[in-house]
Amino acid sequence: MNSLIGPVLQCLVLIISRLAITSDSLHIPRLSPIRSGMFRSLQSEALSAFDPSEYETFYYNQTLDHFNFRPDSFSTFQQKYVINSKYWGGSNISAPIFAYLGAEVSLDSVISYTGFLPENANQFQALLIYIQHRYYGESIPFGSRTEAFQNASTLGYFNSAQALADYAEILVHVKTQLNAEHSPVIVIGGSYGGMLASWFRLKYPHIALGALASSAPILYFDDIIPPENGYLSIVTKDFREASETCYQTIKQSWSEIDTIASMPDGLSNLSKIFRTCSPLRTAHHLKYSLQLMYTRAAQFDDPSTNPVNVICSGIDGAASLTNDTLAKIFAGLVAIEGNRSCYLSIAPSSSSTNALPSNANDETSEGWSWQACSEMVMPVFAVGNNTMFQPYSFDVQSYINNCKAQYGVPSRPNWITTYYGGHDIKLTLYRFASNIIFSNGLRDPYSSGRVLQNISDSLVAVYTKNGSHCLDLVPSNPSTDPDWLINQRKIEVEIIKGWMTTYYAALQTFKS
Amino acid sequence: MNSLIGPVLQCLVLIISRLAITSDSLHIPRLSPIRSGMFRSLQSEALSAFDPSEYETFYYNQTLDHFNFRPDSFSTFQQKYVINSKYWGGSNISAPIFAYLGAEVSLDSVISYTGFLPENANQFQALLIYIQHRYYGESIPFGSRTEAFQNASTLGYFNSAQALADYAEILVHVKTQLNAEHSPVIVIGGSYGGMLASWFRLKYPHIALGALASSAPILYFDDIIPPENGYLSIVTKDFREASETCYQTIKQSWSEIDTIASMPDGLSNLSKIFRTCSPLRTAHHLKYSLQLMYTRAAQFDDPSTNPVNVICSGIDGAASLTNDTLAKIFAGLVAIEGNRSCYLSIAPSSSSTNALPSNANDETSEGWSWQACSEMVMPVFAVGNNTMFQPYSFDVQSYINNCKAQYGVPSRPNWITTYYGGHDIKLTLYRFASNIIFSNGLRDPYSSGRVLQNISDSLVAVYTKNGSHCLDLVPSNPSTDPDWLINQRKIEVEIIKGWMTTYYAALQTFKS
Repeated sequence: MNSLIGPVLQCLVLIISRLAITSDSLHIPRLSPIRSGMFRSLQSEALSAFDPSEYETFYYNQTLDHFNFRPDSFSTFQQKYVINSKYWGGSNISAPIFAYLGAEVSLDSVISYTGFLPENANQFQALLIYIQHRYYGESIPFGSRTEAFQNASTLGYFNSAQALADYAEILVHVKTQLNAEHSPVIVIGGSYGGMLASWFRLKYPHIALGALASSAPILYFDDIIPPENGYLSIVTKDFREASETCYQTIKQSWSEIDTIASMPDGLSNLSKIFRTCSPLRTAHHLKYSLQLMYTRAAQFDDPSTNPVNVICSGIDGAASLTNDTLAKIFAGLVAIEGNRSCYLSIAPSSSSTNALPSNANDETSEGWSWQACSEMVMPVFAVGNNTMFQPYSFDVQSYINNCKAQYGVPSRPNWITTYYGGHDIKLTLYRFASNIIFSNGLRDPYSSGRVLQNISDSLVAVYTKNGSHCLDLVPSNPSTDPDWLINQRKIEVEIIKGWMTTYYAALQTFKS
Repeated sequence: MNSLIGPVLQCLVLIISRLAITSDSLHIPRLSPIRSGMFRSLQSEALSAFDPSEYETFYYNQTLDHFNFRPDSFSTFQQKYVINSKYWGGSNISAPIFAYLGAEVSLDSVISYTGFLPENANQFQALLIYIQHRYYGESIPFGSRTEAFQNASTLGYFNSAQALADYAEILVHVKTQLNAEHSPVIVIGGSYGGMLASWFRLKYPHIALGALASSAPILYFDDIIPPENGYLSIVTKDFREASETCYQTIKQSWSEIDTIASMPDGLSNLSKIFRTCSPLRTAHHLKYSLQLMYTRAAQFDDPSTNPVNVICSGIDGAASLTNDTLAKIFAGLVAIEGNRSCYLSIAPSSSSTNALPSNANDETSEGWSWQACSEMVMPVFAVGNNTMFQPYSFDVQSYINNCKAQYGVPSRPNWITTYYGGHDIKLTLYRFASNIIFSNGLRDPYSSGRVLQNISDSLVAVYTKNGSHCLDLVPSNPSTDPDWLINQRKIEVEIIKGWMTTYYAALQTFKS
């Protein structure tokens, strides 16, 4: 099994390592629809649903600041969106529009990996539109990335409320252009994009009829999720379910690392044990890198590749050769990364709190770093006493201070719940809103911040016990997808069909 | 009858005249909860429900820009709010909060005139909170009115989305301070404040359980209301219902004014006929002033004072003395303004498009002028062929240009419907949202932009055939209020009670 999935996961881990640079100091795992399943599908027949020649690129002259009327607010930038109209039934029948709301990655890298849209375009006769999130990809204000990312004065316009307003303007524009004013729009997104999709339906119900919000941890703000039920408790559960001994080994390893690190030549010995590409400067770096390995494996625990099992096979497999805890952990690292000359090659500096990543190509890391600091304050790595990790309490004040040191402006840790809600979500929404699917896989540690249960008849939680992050959105693979995944997607399609039926009936009734 | 209501209406007209300065060039009648009924009630026993000693003033350190994270966005200003906690049942029983959302007037001038809150505080055991809208009253950013109103760079933060976010922050803050996290909030507002109340429930359902939106023309944007069904068609209806001959006289008067104005010494003759305090410089000024008199009379056509009838009594009464149309119109002017040495004393300059009013005390006029230019683009004075007024078509491009000339930034005429919706409101909201009362009186010309009918079981239109602008909110007057008005208020109270009952049941069910 290892040899089959080795290269794929290598690819994933490589990306993860690069992304660790800025999230390190903030203890934030990045939200992203890029996942192992996507890389896997690239090599499968599943991508046959995606044909690049069907897609056309457009640019919208977007307003820089929707919520201000200062002269500079009226500046514009070119916002990219991509349309596939091959399957669209047209405005005469008010055929639907599926709108993929871009998130913290370049649009180009997700269009081909978002299977849900092209795979269902034909049966819905849907127009597909993918909109790039501002400050990512080619949708950069101020003329260039260098200008846009200069400081808080240019980054200030980079936030979720502005992004939603961008989507609103573009969707209104496109519907007008197509004379499709009564075409129902379904917004779709994963992870951060899933939050945007659910928030878009809440804030712009007159533009979107419904939302498919995949793996959207919209409750992971403020103090809504207690640390003992948080992200790392799910990671722990995933590993414990895979193997009790694996879980115990990992749980033990942290204090062993600390013990060795505190001895003379400790860091040097740890560097040797883990064959690090450069000498370790702190034990924290090692622990953080290992934690990231476990969390990513859990988050992207694809049923066909099962990285959690891969790591645990490595760890447990080594038990016949050694009693040494750290040797077993290293075996887990080798199992997931494959045989390499050295490991943990890019060393995040544990003390850096202010540097933007020097590698400007990593736009996701750079962009999310700002978003996480400014408004997307998610205490994801807060740890209770019940996990396989060392306890860690999230200190909002030091988080704010770190961000202020990094960007010159403090965080607004309460803004997301003030603007979008989150506390007592069932109580506040049980008779408000409609047509949102909150889809999740319960192996995804972000599912800890998910909407737990149906809020009402049409604000529904569709989840699978064994699913991982955004699994329902990636291209299907008939030869490997398990029944529960096929079923989850089917349920989502049926729910959306139900929205359509009700909508078209209402359209007949209300149309003047 | 005239002698009884004369002074009151004088007072009203005086205010109207002063407010005409800036709306003149833009053809926008100002939205305002200040109305004849309120002045009337001042002298009645109805105000007994208002006791100033029950109210305490607070200031909240408000964020200048909620939707931007530039360093200057974090500036703060002191936002005023006033609380009456005398009737509150307390946090132990999660007793409700009635929140009056301030609009385009100073808070001090409305607290005592908003009868609905104090009159119902006791039976609901409600806390009353009144929040001042930013850039009005004492809630001024940038340290002073002079600074704040300097130009678009400081005015840019002055818009409805920022105002709603202000209210959200203050309500969250107050609930936290009072440990009243589960106290349901009902937001209440009239006219522009009524729009804010309905939009607040739509955008912040997690903060407000429901909204009473009185006389809120939320549909008066873009091209939703055709000119032939607009504001001036209702004014026409009001006058025609009062008197067919009065209606005919007014309808005839415009061309007579034009005819005289086109003759030698025409303007001088018109100045004599209408005894203007200063010589007329254009016929437009006279026509505009008269139009304003008719529209205000219709908008504030209180059942106990009936200014439309007063004007028509004057016009029709003169018919026994003269056949001259303009002499009759002048008699209408005298009837409503009372006997004065001269009329139309403050002359709006018909050609001014750029000047802020020189009288800085008139903060409502100054503030609304900016709001109407920037985002509250309501084509209210567009006229079809079916009114007693001369046809006038609203040219959005020249409106935008005028605003740009006045403030240096153009209007965003489509922003309100993009952000809040409005088109196809029944179709978009029939299965979305809940708990909004759209109350109206059908004599109010602004009711042309109202929500016409119930959208759903809990998005309801409560209106009266003979009511005027915001009539349900003003202090009740047991000795003069007609049954239909008493009944309208009762219905509103019963609906809100229903929301409470459902909410408290849900609270029992969902509370952890």
